[in-house]
Formats: sequence, C-alpha cells, structure tokens
Amino acid sequence: MALPPTPRVVVDHSIVRSNIAQMAAFARDRHIALRPHVKTHKSIALARMQVAAGASGITVATIGEAEVFAAAGFDDIFVAYPLWIDESNADRLRSLTRSVQIRVGVASIEGARQLGRHVPGVEVSIEIDSGHHRTGVHAEEAGDVAVAARDAGLVVAGVFTFPGHAYNPGGTPDAARDESAALALARSAVEVRGINIRVVSGGSTPTAASADPHVLTEFRPGVYVFNDTQQVLLGTCGEDQVALTVEATVVSATTSHVVVNAGSKILGADRQDWTDGFGRVLGHPDARIPALSEHHAAIVGVRLHMGERIRILPNHVCPVVNLVDELWVERGNVERYTVDARGANT
Amino acid sequence: MALPPTPRVVVDHSIVRSNIAQMAAFARDRHIALRPHVKTHKSIALARMQVAAGASGITVATIGEAEVFAAAGFDDIFVAYPLWIDESNADRLRSLTRSVQIRVGVASIEGARQLGRHVPGVEVSIEIDSGHHRTGVHAEEAGDVAVAARDAGLVVAGVFTFPGHAYNPGGTPDAARDESAALALARSAVEVRGINIRVVSGGSTPTAASADPHVLTEFRPGVYVFNDTQQVLLGTCGEDQVALTVEATVVSATTSHVVVNAGSKILGADRQDWTDGFGRVLGHPDARIPALSEHHAAIVGVRLHMGERIRILPNHVCPVVNLVDELWVERGNVERYTVDARGANT
Repeated sequence: MALPPTPRVVVDHSIVRSNIAQMAAFARDRHIALRPHVKTHKSIALARMQVAAGASGITVATIGEAEVFAAAGFDDIFVAYPLWIDESNADRLRSLTRSVQIRVGVASIEGARQLGRHVPGVEVSIEIDSGHHRTGVHAEEAGDVAVAARDAGLVVAGVFTFPGHAYNPGGTPDAARDESAALALARSAVEVRGINIRVVSGGSTPTAASADPHVLTEFRPGVYVFNDTQQVLLGTCGEDQVALTVEATVVSATTSHVVVNAGSKILGADRQDWTDGFGRVLGHPDARIPALSEHHAAIVGVRLHMGERIRILPNHVCPVVNLVDELWVERGNVERYTVDARGANT
Repeated sequence: MALPPTPRVVVDHSIVRSNIAQMAAFARDRHIALRPHVKTHKSIALARMQVAAGASGITVATIGEAEVFAAAGFDDIFVAYPLWIDESNADRLRSLTRSVQIRVGVASIEGARQLGRHVPGVEVSIEIDSGHHRTGVHAEEAGDVAVAARDAGLVVAGVFTFPGHAYNPGGTPDAARDESAALALARSAVEVRGINIRVVSGGSTPTAASADPHVLTEFRPGVYVFNDTQQVLLGTCGEDQVALTVEATVVSATTSHVVVNAGSKILGADRQDWTDGFGRVLGHPDARIPALSEHHAAIVGVRLHMGERIRILPNHVCPVVNLVDELWVERGNVERYTVDARGANT
C-alpha cells in the first residue's frame, strides 16, 4: 500500500520547525518567556522541539494534558484554565504538585477558596478578562482575588489573560492593546495589595507579534506551530506557513460541486461567522467549502476529477489534531507524530 | 474518587434500550428491514443490542468502521458511502468481501468502473440524490449507473438515498416524500434496464417514522439510539428520549453568563442555522449556549452556582461519541460502552 489512505492529517515538518524557530527567536529578541500552549498539538515530540528551541515551559488546558506531559518529563507546566477542584480531581492535581512545578488558573474568589481547601500551597495565576468576556475577572478586581487566594493558602505567582477577541478580522491590534492594558492594570491591582508577582502572561497566536515586553513577562501562543485558515484570514501568517493539512480524495464530481471524503470527523466543524467556509483547498485559492457532513466536504469553485487527492487547510487546527491518534509527517526524519494527549478533557 | 471527573459523556442505558426497541418494533410492524447506521455509537455492544432487537444488519460509513464490526462478528454490512477504491484501500475492501457479506455504495459511472477494476464481484447499491444534493445521482440516471456497474463486474443489489434535507424544521414531511418518490423512480429506472434489485434503502432518523413500506425494503436510521438536541428541535423525539448527555461542572458564574468545563472537544462544534445554540441544558429549558471554545461552554438564561454539575444535550450526537474512548453508562448492567470504532475515518 504505497499510496496512503485518505482522509489523513499531514504535517510538514520543515514548516513546523520554521514556525517554532521564528516564534522562539521573537521571544528571545523581546525578552519575553515563551510558554507555548500544547493543546494545539498534544504531542510530546512537538513540545520537546518547542522546549529545545527555548520555550521556558508549557501551557495546558486540563489536568489530563498536564499528566501526559509531566509523565514525559516536562517539569514546568501552567494550567491556563480556572479549574474547579473537588473530590473528582483534587488527588490528581495534588499528585502533579509533588512531581512538577505547576501553576493553575484562578478566576474567582470562590474558585480560589475551593482550590486552597483541596490543594493548599499550589501556585496560581489570576485570570483577567481583557475583552473576550469568557472567563476571568476585570483587571481592577484582580487584587481582591489575589488576596483571597493568598488567604486561602495559595501562592500567587501572577496574572494572565487570553485575548480571544483577537479572533476577528481587523480586531487584532485593538485586542493586543486591550491585553497589555488589562494585564498592566491587573498587576498594579495585585501589587498595591502587597502581593508581588513575577509572571504577567498574555498571548494568543494573533496577538503574539504585538506582545509588549514592558508589560508581559511571558506569552502562550499555541496555534503558531501549525497555523490554519483562521490565521491566514486574520493576517497572522501566509498560506505557506500553514504546516498541517488534511489530505482527501474526490468521491463525487458533478457540474455543481465536488465532494471529498474528509468531513467534520477529521476537519472539525469550527466555523466563525467571518470565515467563508470550512477551510481552504491548497493550491486552489478560489475553492470554497460551503458544507460539511461527517465524512463529506462539498467544494465549489474548482474543477477536480474523481479520485484526485487534494489538501485542505482546516479552519481551526486544534480540534483537528484531537480527532486523530497520529499525524503523518512529511519532510522530517520521523514518520509520525503521536497525539499523546488526544481526548484528555478532564 | 466517588465523584466522577467532568466533562464526561453519560448514556442512560434504559432510554437507549427503549429507543432501540421502539425502532425495531416499528420496522417489524411495517415489514421494513432495519439496518441501523452505527457511525452514531461506533460501539460493538450497542450494535449487538440492535441486532438482538431484530436489526437485519448494520450500516457503516467507512471501510475502517466495517473492519471493526466485522472483526467483532457482524457479518452483514452496508458501507453507505460512494467509496473511491484505489491502491490505498482496495486490499482492505477485498479482504472484507472474503469474510463478511458486504455491500458498497456507488454514486457515479466512474466510481462503479473503478470499484469493478479493483474489487470485481462485490455487491453494490446505487446512491440516489433525493434532495439533499450532496452525493448520488438523479433517480432517472440510476439505470445508467446500474448498467455500468453490472458491466464493470459488480453485482447490483439495490438503490439507496440519504434524505439529509429532512434536517430542517418543518421540512421533514417533504423530505420523506422526496425520499420515497426518488427511490421508487430509481428502482424503475434500474429494473427497466433488465437489472432486478432486492434492496430499496432509505432512511434517516427524522424520516424513519414516514418510511413507506410500499417503496422501502430497508431503512438506516442512526441517531435514534441516543437522539440529540437537533432531533428534539425537529420534533422527532422528546427531551426524555435523549439518552446521551455531557456532564459538566460550572467553573465561572457571573451576572452575564456561566461557563462550564465542556467545550467543543467533547460537545462537538456542529451548529445548524436553525438551532439556537450549541445544545440544551437538561432541566433548564430556558438556558442557551451561545458560545463554545475548546474547553468552555458559555451558558445564558440560567443561574447556576460554582462547582454545580449540569448535563448538556449536544446538538448532534455523532461527533460527540467520536471524541471519547468510552461512554459512561447509567441504569444499565455495564459500567461503560467502548467507542470501538472511534476515529475510523479511512
């Protein structure tokens, strides 16, 4: 079977290496610590490349992801999520505190108290809402949460934010400014209460290039390793910097549209209002993907023949990786990257 | 750890059993063979329950799914997909033809010839477009494809369609009529060419109740095993017939919205235009989920306290199951169902 099966997720190792090196060089130049979010690739091999290039540690979203990377030897992990700790997960977090340097997100006084009750002494960062309005407190309230955390027996190490509102065409510069302003204000609000912090953490791939070294001490981009259609449309990268594609085969070709055998079960179903379909087709700039089923992508604006193979740039790369166990590697010296933390949701 | 971790996918075995029994009884009453689509649950245990209740065989979407179920002893499998067979997958399909009774979808003359070249003698059904406009030929063209298939050395067993346009509120009755009309016309178009067929196969969960025994010899609903928010909104079932939910914990609660720790990496990101969010919240009919990130669902229209656990009815159940390795079972005599064919995309 010289011809590999489709659909499959393919990664260009050479582009990955370049993306990792560029972000690492940028962080070095700005003197900002780079702590990449590994939820994008969930892969030990790729996280090792990031650390080898100079990353100061890694960021994860769940205790489960932290466990996978801690077991592989990563010893400095930030769970950038306002975990609710109870009898269902306290043992697991306590166990991690004994084996690695771990920092956990806190986004409320209640959350801080609950964490302190179950895992006293753990290091935390206060989550700030810099405009995305998902989780996190207003910057001015960071002091109250920090005091509550300290009083609950936690070690307040810093503040952090995710400027998710950068995911909007044209909105990235404003979001980057919001990010810096909110973090600077939050730092003051905490330190005026007598709690000195060492970590001011921002970051997303779109705002990374605007990271302000006068405010941020670290940043946490994730998607930059692979990039995706969203980043191309936001102007964060060019199509030639997208390292991950889904290879698919044409199974239907009529005058109205073609259908390939990659659907939402490998491309993911993420679609922001401002995207023009479910991804782009490599080498066919006019092609659009208006509809996706579980095993079908309908493509318009291009002529393709039955059995032809194409490569799709997914809208959002993180959910794609989480749908497969392995990534096929091209232009590298390994055959596959393993998705070691696939499904680590808890 | 008496309290299970969240987020997790929970299945009510008692509702599953009732959903399976009801559909089986309906099929028996109408004298239509029930060949459930197992892409919904991807679980050997659940497919066995369906066969024990009277299913005549199973439907799958990929060769990979067929392999998983064939290895578990299922010996009558329909791949309801217009596979493009080449050197990447021909060996696998040939191997299946030697171990089980397998039927494969064909939706074009080219696809039929390609299949005949690689796997001569395999049984096929011609896919008809009954109004969904995804894949399949117009009913009148079914005869041409059937003749091409026969001439390519394939055994033409029948015609089939997926009336996907039933997934539209108020559109289900029309879609069911389209389905019957297209299949009846397709059967004539094939048989007038001297090819007698034994299988006229329709079906989707929304149109199942309208399956016309004068036209259909079999139907292939999948979602009915679990049901989901889409089916509730389409009027196919009541909320009390939804067997699968995602349990999540509140990690943030402000005056504007609450956030739970289940995001698109467990709920899936499917959202049709006609749904009012990313699923519903069990027991909170006014709650809506306007925004989803990978590990966050934002919920409005309900007051919940920090740490509270809720159950979300996903919009579309099939992608949810494919995101986890196991389903937690309640009210049953097993602890888990395994998602045996998770990720079987090729």
